[in-house]
Amino acid sequence: MHDDRKRSGFKTRTRVDDARERLLDAAAPHERTERVGLTRADGRTLAERVTAPNPVPGYDRAAMDGWAVRAADTFGASGRSPTVLRMAGAAGDDAPVGPSDAVRVHTGSALPEGADAVVMIEQTERVGDEIEVFDAVSEGENVGDAGEDVEADQLLFEPGHTLRPSDLGLLKSVGLDRVRAFEPPTVGVLPTGEELVQSDPGPGEVIETNGLTVSTLASRWGGAPTYRDVVTDDFDALRAAIQRDLTKDVIVTTGGSSVGERDLLPEVIDELGEVLVHGVALKPGHPVALGVVEETPVVSLPGYPVACIVNAVQFLRPLVKHVGGMACPPFPTTEARLARKISSEPGTRTFARVELDEENGEQVAVPTRTSGSGILSSVALADGWVVVPDSQEGLPEGQRVAVEHWEWSA
Amino acid sequence: MHDDRKRSGFKTRTRVDDARERLLDAAAPHERTERVGLTRADGRTLAERVTAPNPVPGYDRAAMDGWAVRAADTFGASGRSPTVLRMAGAAGDDAPVGPSDAVRVHTGSALPEGADAVVMIEQTERVGDEIEVFDAVSEGENVGDAGEDVEADQLLFEPGHTLRPSDLGLLKSVGLDRVRAFEPPTVGVLPTGEELVQSDPGPGEVIETNGLTVSTLASRWGGAPTYRDVVTDDFDALRAAIQRDLTKDVIVTTGGSSVGERDLLPEVIDELGEVLVHGVALKPGHPVALGVVEETPVVSLPGYPVACIVNAVQFLRPLVKHVGGMACPPFPTTEARLARKISSEPGTRTFARVELDEENGEQVAVPTRTSGSGILSSVALADGWVVVPDSQEGLPEGQRVAVEHWEWSA
Repeated sequence: MHDDRKRSGFKTRTRVDDARERLLDAAAPHERTERVGLTRADGRTLAERVTAPNPVPGYDRAAMDGWAVRAADTFGASGRSPTVLRMAGAAGDDAPVGPSDAVRVHTGSALPEGADAVVMIEQTERVGDEIEVFDAVSEGENVGDAGEDVEADQLLFEPGHTLRPSDLGLLKSVGLDRVRAFEPPTVGVLPTGEELVQSDPGPGEVIETNGLTVSTLASRWGGAPTYRDVVTDDFDALRAAIQRDLTKDVIVTTGGSSVGERDLLPEVIDELGEVLVHGVALKPGHPVALGVVEETPVVSLPGYPVACIVNAVQFLRPLVKHVGGMACPPFPTTEARLARKISSEPGTRTFARVELDEENGEQVAVPTRTSGSGILSSVALADGWVVVPDSQEGLPEGQRVAVEHWEWSA
Repeated sequence: MHDDRKRSGFKTRTRVDDARERLLDAAAPHERTERVGLTRADGRTLAERVTAPNPVPGYDRAAMDGWAVRAADTFGASGRSPTVLRMAGAAGDDAPVGPSDAVRVHTGSALPEGADAVVMIEQTERVGDEIEVFDAVSEGENVGDAGEDVEADQLLFEPGHTLRPSDLGLLKSVGLDRVRAFEPPTVGVLPTGEELVQSDPGPGEVIETNGLTVSTLASRWGGAPTYRDVVTDDFDALRAAIQRDLTKDVIVTTGGSSVGERDLLPEVIDELGEVLVHGVALKPGHPVALGVVEETPVVSLPGYPVACIVNAVQFLRPLVKHVGGMACPPFPTTEARLARKISSEPGTRTFARVELDEENGEQVAVPTRTSGSGILSSVALADGWVVVPDSQEGLPEGQRVAVEHWEWSA
């Protein structure tokens, strides 16, 4: 098949934001949920609204080491004229604090019944069974109220919130031990290309790397990838591979997404379903195809490693997040001064790999020399990339830029 | 035991940086390594210097779809006066390209022997067994050289590099399928406190949360935590719990780290080994103890949840990274304008929890109303914190600040 379109390349290239919107519009969140214990819930996304079943703390408690008292008993106490109270039973023995009683409490102890304040240990002196109090306390002084941290029925988290370590502590503190979370969206990862082998390449053969990188990224982004064997550039083989993974929430392929003779993925998607976008105005990596087959979104990434990664970040990440009910936060960035100009065409979003350097205490972003889409080392050995917006034609030397760390980890 | 020191609180508070340095100086990297397959190596830290055993690509290859030729044969070719070449065997059949031969190649195909350039398909027309060439190519044109991406023996990564998805692709591309990584450092996590229960608290009881939060953080930071049962405030029980975990690379306890009657951890560490630091000039959370027992570093975190987290980030994270041979990168930050002033004492490093808001397209950091160290919700529901340096006394309203996202995830 050698039609005009294939000879002349892409007629139109869809803008990145439009392409992403079309893809997400065609993909529904899977909405499957499961109960997850808190010890395994870090990074998981809530499928429920969580309110606190119990207040924290669950009772009034001493906020200081000292003596639980009735505040009224201490009125007028001073260093010159201490008030003398009677040492009564220890906290926890359930004896209420009566008039002129003082009960020893530790920070965090439940305030004994009858008491309404705590005198700090530093403000007292014990003499036999008597406690001299050198300063007055007012009602509630040095007492933490029940519900001071979290009130009963307080809203803690909305659905879609991705849990962090401190969230798990908070959830446990209100008496929960598990939460309802969205299942990680399943992702079928299909590397394609007749030249690809898993190891020991002969002449004309290349080691498969895109599938490994994309699977690892999908997993970082909260997906559950299945890294499939290489599929050769054969229409029937590709069709069968996609059909096998229609049970997945997302299918992603690498290679064969352009308009060459052996770029069969767009045709396969077109036969089985619908191609939503073919060719996007971004660089490196415009030959991406986005489609949907029997309600399963398919992202067909180009085979050049850098192009593959750029498109995975632009389309696969928001798709996995969307299907899994997760938010898609911006990446962390470092502000830096551009050491050399970056060229780009207006209308095309350009991802320029940079290394970060420090010069006189200032961060400097140095664009990597290789700008090709095939040079994996240029992205793996870089510190991040600078995004040149569609609306701009390049960025001048000296420009303040935000270097995006799309692979940051804790 | 009620000595003067306990009555009067901490006599001195060590500066954060000094405290951290003393801790790391006393802790040696464990240096245990293991071989890890690339599919499981994301986030792992290299224990070896990695050089490329093979170049990438492994052979000269076509950079375009077209015809592999001897460049000299095309000299003088033009649209008006095409050069005519003879269609020869397909790429891969090992027939060398002779004078006036043209062999069909695809992007990425090995360049057949004898050829030294590729004519783009768009610049040719096939007429029967003949290929008309409309433009001359020079030697090497449209050819990707062997080693263009990575040269054989090129240095890829130094020991201590933490692997990211694109790194895994690069390592695979040079023919590696596993790497030598440091084992995750083992961390014994011991929550302490006689008031703590795992669920269903009665009067005076509190649900254990610090151990869960700290275990989850240790795991995020590359450690392998063991979340132990609650240990009560008893000298012998605490001593036995620490002795049991001396086989770990790091021990971390929560609670009982201050100078009260029931704060036994510093004494236990002192009896078994050495207390390096007790009391640090940070807020919230000065009552932290750092020590070492039989070469195992021990971080004794305060029991107030926020104080516990702040100290875990300041001391446990760098310790886990150091012991595990990992770098300890700064957290991602968001630049924002401070909506209200933050108060702090000079000489004390202060961690002020903030929520981020957008106002007229500008990020605004709003300090949370609750500043106490016991209010877990104030950290779990915040977006990050602003660090007021030891050298400053508060930060004024309107100040530009960097909000630290100490729980950011991909």
